[in-house]
Amino acid sequence: MSTNRFFTLVSRPTGELADSDLGRHEQPIAAPKDGQIQVRTTCISIDPTNRIWMSDVPQYMPPIAIGEVVRALGVGVVEQSANPGFAVGDRVLGLLGWATHPTLDPATSLVGPLPRELPLSDAKVLSLLGLTAGPTAYFGLLEVGQPRAGETLVVDAAAGAVGSLVGQIGKIKGCRVVGIAGGPEKCAYVTKTLGFDACIDYKHEDVGRGLDLCCPKGIDVCFENVGGPIFDEILLRMNLNGRVSICGLIAGYNDAGKRIPGPYNFGMVLMRRLRVQGFIVSDYFPRFPEASAELLQWAQAGKLQTLEDVRQGFDALPETLRQLLRGDKHGKLVLEP
Amino acid sequence: MSTNRFFTLVSRPTGELADSDLGRHEQPIAAPKDGQIQVRTTCISIDPTNRIWMSDVPQYMPPIAIGEVVRALGVGVVEQSANPGFAVGDRVLGLLGWATHPTLDPATSLVGPLPRELPLSDAKVLSLLGLTAGPTAYFGLLEVGQPRAGETLVVDAAAGAVGSLVGQIGKIKGCRVVGIAGGPEKCAYVTKTLGFDACIDYKHEDVGRGLDLCCPKGIDVCFENVGGPIFDEILLRMNLNGRVSICGLIAGYNDAGKRIPGPYNFGMVLMRRLRVQGFIVSDYFPRFPEASAELLQWAQAGKLQTLEDVRQGFDALPETLRQLLRGDKHGKLVLEP
Repeated sequence: MSTNRFFTLVSRPTGELADSDLGRHEQPIAAPKDGQIQVRTTCISIDPTNRIWMSDVPQYMPPIAIGEVVRALGVGVVEQSANPGFAVGDRVLGLLGWATHPTLDPATSLVGPLPRELPLSDAKVLSLLGLTAGPTAYFGLLEVGQPRAGETLVVDAAAGAVGSLVGQIGKIKGCRVVGIAGGPEKCAYVTKTLGFDACIDYKHEDVGRGLDLCCPKGIDVCFENVGGPIFDEILLRMNLNGRVSICGLIAGYNDAGKRIPGPYNFGMVLMRRLRVQGFIVSDYFPRFPEASAELLQWAQAGKLQTLEDVRQGFDALPETLRQLLRGDKHGKLVLEP
Repeated sequence: MSTNRFFTLVSRPTGELADSDLGRHEQPIAAPKDGQIQVRTTCISIDPTNRIWMSDVPQYMPPIAIGEVVRALGVGVVEQSANPGFAVGDRVLGLLGWATHPTLDPATSLVGPLPRELPLSDAKVLSLLGLTAGPTAYFGLLEVGQPRAGETLVVDAAAGAVGSLVGQIGKIKGCRVVGIAGGPEKCAYVTKTLGFDACIDYKHEDVGRGLDLCCPKGIDVCFENVGGPIFDEILLRMNLNGRVSICGLIAGYNDAGKRIPGPYNFGMVLMRRLRVQGFIVSDYFPRFPEASAELLQWAQAGKLQTLEDVRQGFDALPETLRQLLRGDKHGKLVLEP
């Protein structure tokens, strides 16, 4: 293949991404200029943030400019290098974009080398380090939640990309880990595949009673993705000096702009001297290499299970992103171009 | 005076303390046994917790046993000593109880010496260190709130025993300090006597608009005594990485047992990455000497203003406690027996 295929943003989508919002191009592969590298993309991470970057709502990175290549995280192999930090054949991770053979500046595209002889598939690497499940789980649990061996950790959205890693890191740290997820299949996945000690099915069980049964010593650390009534049940069972890491409050996202009450059991913050702390993973960006190294080590040692949904074919990118946003996937969604 | 007069608890009061719940006694002053001291009480602190200790509801110290002397903090002078740590004439602070000439074990009664030549009245000492305004303000602001010079601190219940000290400590630490209090007299006291930069009268002003005007750079630290709608207005204006020290949530105390909503703006914890932490001052008990020393120094240097309401006469103790719980006082309530 001697051409680079890529998608650019032609117009900002309103609602669902339309094919007409993108331009599909084919051009000769560009030789890298001084400091640049040219990469063959082997796997592209499909994330909700791809869609956010296409809008011009306020966000943590600037939106994709009109005419620019669609921004996306990916794994690839260096084919040409004019940068002393990269050799031909290096495996790299970074913002390769929706392009098969991009030529780019590693610094501005946040491209860095992966460890040599890393026995993990591209899809697994993106499952761990993709935008940005692994670092979110890592910093949110370890820095904010500060779990200690023997403590009880509760994670809701336990079968999700972040929650599944949070619970497994909790097990690595010696905690009793209790998940909350929707439906018997997800709960079985959480306990049998991911190795949580227990999982409560919030769709079919009373969450309060489930927590009483599964957390006989109370709850020391809560990793909170959801908010709403489930969070209230957790709060009620927090131990003295417990910690609550607020990663997301999706129970209220559909009501944005409405006046929704905070946790009814907020008084527990005082009664149990809790520390409740919100965090956003981008605050930890300078420390991502530290998190990535440890996450990859744990995964190689078989301590972090992940589930991927791998699609094929460069031209399927727009439709695959639409499917992600419809929830039509089973595990971390990636595409091999 | 060669007798010790004291009150004991005869029965646990239901509702307001009745004179019949107490026994008034007069006995010869007891000589101290080995390790004990005998003190002449010069000033007794009147605190809500005196009433709590008379009940057998769950609490941080065991309740007063039936037949025991009523527990209370006080200042006194050592008259006889059989303890090498105390000399006759030493001025002491501790749980002297409702007794004019108690004989006690300094360790079990938490009695310790005050600095020699401390130019502060007994009432001022109890205003600062009484149960337990000073240490509550000190640890709640400095350990939990962690204010830095140049930051904006908001304190509600700003004219109260704790709030007034919190704001003054905030000024010592170089913060812009904004109080919230009820009525023009309290607000004038907060700004003119206590030296806060501004004070919002929540009874006559829109608190949100007042905060917008008084906190042009947003709020970095909140010392929260109240909860409810005022706390919601504060949350909405917290800066990135702000800290909220939850000392009390009295707005909900009259509704105990009812299902009252938590802060409507709880989502700000995530959006602004706030740290919200409850604390109870007894957790810091081992570090009280450190707080006491610094608080007394600041007060001697004229940096901490306090207001006392000094009553006279040992036999007025029961009625004075009833008046405290009715709010019938102006400043920290103490009694000279």
